[in-house]
Amino acid sequence: MTQPAPGRPTLVTVARAAGVSRQTVSNVINSPHLVSPETLELVRSVLDSVGYRPNLAARQLRTGRSGNIGLRMRPSNDGINGAVLDGFLHALTEAAQAAGHRIVLFTATDDADEVRGYRELVDTTNIDGFVLTDTHHGDDRARWLEEQGTAFVTFGRPWSDTVAPETSSHSWVDVDGAAGTAAATAHLLGRGHTRIGFIGWPAGSGTGDERRTGWRRTLLDAGLPIDGLDVACADGIPDGASAADSLLRSASVTALVCASDSLALGALGAARTSAQPIAVVGYDNTAVAAAVGMSSVAQPLEQVARSVIDSLLAQLADPVPPDAMHRLVAPSLVARASSTAPAHVDPRHAPFVGTT
Amino acid sequence: MTQPAPGRPTLVTVARAAGVSRQTVSNVINSPHLVSPETLELVRSVLDSVGYRPNLAARQLRTGRSGNIGLRMRPSNDGINGAVLDGFLHALTEAAQAAGHRIVLFTATDDADEVRGYRELVDTTNIDGFVLTDTHHGDDRARWLEEQGTAFVTFGRPWSDTVAPETSSHSWVDVDGAAGTAAATAHLLGRGHTRIGFIGWPAGSGTGDERRTGWRRTLLDAGLPIDGLDVACADGIPDGASAADSLLRSASVTALVCASDSLALGALGAARTSAQPIAVVGYDNTAVAAAVGMSSVAQPLEQVARSVIDSLLAQLADPVPPDAMHRLVAPSLVARASSTAPAHVDPRHAPFVGTT
Repeated sequence: MTQPAPGRPTLVTVARAAGVSRQTVSNVINSPHLVSPETLELVRSVLDSVGYRPNLAARQLRTGRSGNIGLRMRPSNDGINGAVLDGFLHALTEAAQAAGHRIVLFTATDDADEVRGYRELVDTTNIDGFVLTDTHHGDDRARWLEEQGTAFVTFGRPWSDTVAPETSSHSWVDVDGAAGTAAATAHLLGRGHTRIGFIGWPAGSGTGDERRTGWRRTLLDAGLPIDGLDVACADGIPDGASAADSLLRSASVTALVCASDSLALGALGAARTSAQPIAVVGYDNTAVAAAVGMSSVAQPLEQVARSVIDSLLAQLADPVPPDAMHRLVAPSLVARASSTAPAHVDPRHAPFVGTT
Repeated sequence: MTQPAPGRPTLVTVARAAGVSRQTVSNVINSPHLVSPETLELVRSVLDSVGYRPNLAARQLRTGRSGNIGLRMRPSNDGINGAVLDGFLHALTEAAQAAGHRIVLFTATDDADEVRGYRELVDTTNIDGFVLTDTHHGDDRARWLEEQGTAFVTFGRPWSDTVAPETSSHSWVDVDGAAGTAAATAHLLGRGHTRIGFIGWPAGSGTGDERRTGWRRTLLDAGLPIDGLDVACADGIPDGASAADSLLRSASVTALVCASDSLALGALGAARTSAQPIAVVGYDNTAVAAAVGMSSVAQPLEQVARSVIDSLLAQLADPVPPDAMHRLVAPSLVARASSTAPAHVDPRHAPFVGTT
């Protein structure tokens, strides 16, 4: 009904369009109880039609919200297996900013310390909610937040032997890791490999177990063997190299799917000493994978971050908490020379890894 | 004078040790104006002697400080040249946490938008101060903060044609980039190279220019040539590869010092096609450098972060702003196979880079 004024709308342009004083517009934003219902409705419709965005201080006064979202920052470890969380932090900060919010970072030594961090932030800072990462079996962090009635979303499913993630009472967003390793395995099958090994983490980690499952199921579906083709070890380049060495010696694999880029980089190093070419695929599509020409499964971190922020904002917008949101997103394979090149091509294109 | 009580001191243990009520101790922390000077002094000395740390909410009430430190998060670019800022963010969050503070992240599209971000945070959030990164010529961000009287420290010197960094009115911490490339060049001289090229950024960036200076000065001091051994290009793997190709073709260099790991990774790829071994040293010691066995100059990010937080806390603690702190810290060279190995060794140890 009202044409938007040219340029960025201000209190003055809104006041002119509504035919009221600047003070009245200010009252509508900051002290709506001072304004008659008719004027309130009129001015609000003008605010909407011109796309006026009240400054955040006013909005904070009005809503009691701070725009602050808390996140525990994790160590970067070797800079490879921690890179996915750095990537997520970038995406989350961008998604939060797009919604007028900010990320408040703290560190913690373990789950209990993380909960102490939540309590401290709730006590000392006007914080709207939290984002949790690294969900795992026996994870008690969500319970404390649920008991407090604090808004939060986890990046990662709640892993439990008794409760299915789909029935969880809290919201989560996660990447379908089984689909990721299944895509990696299918890619290797498509390139003619039939003895495909898997290097992953010890059983019991929700994330690690489902990455193993995707490899396992794809081979079984293709009628191919899996026995003896699976090694579990700690995450890291040396661990990946040892695991690959043992699979190359004992199981005559020609290709390896790995649960992380750290493991895959170790495997690549070991594979270079093999007489025949060995294809390797990692997981997380880190900068290191791109730099050394290593195929890897990419998590859609921007999509995860946007979903996490959407879910958090839905909880904050609604005085009655909405139903928990559960969103599983699909990763994608980025194929590079480590799984597509014939061996001993132009060395500039050869997959490789050094040791330090 | 008072023995610390065993275990973590509480209001109760402090009250017992001081011979006052729990409420009096609470008043000393939260409402010191209600307490007589004598009691105040007594209880505070007990608080100090038992190492009692009042919870942050009480401290915030008392000091008017939030413990929140704002930082603009930068894009991670190719994940290599952005990695040093991710590393700094980790170190800064840890250093802030150790001092009872938190990092508040926001994003911005340019300097002016960053200043808008500062204004918004000052307006909407109780924020104690800011940390600025990526100082550059024509940088106006510090001026706004100085005018506001807001506490801040820059990671990076103020680069100006008229004012020496040592006379800057604001506090900064920086890494001596010239010392870094000088160490890299001296390392290569020590391994017998006499034709050492430099791949860096176009002139006019304070950080880039001083990295070139360290290489230049070291060669001149050694009585060695520099003419035609210096290429300037944008930052990135393909740019580094082209620059190295041209230096290898036209200048018969046997070694290359690079202003970043991205450039150095490109140079490594180009060097692999050379008939003779070419030594390469990068800058920033990223995870990629470690993974591919590439020598690189490491910035002491933990030390920088601690100095930044120390300087910020000094500004916050003192009602009269202390003198600006200027601290230049030395980087160190991490030597790996790319500058120490003979060519064509065990491929597992060969420096290498692939393309994507």
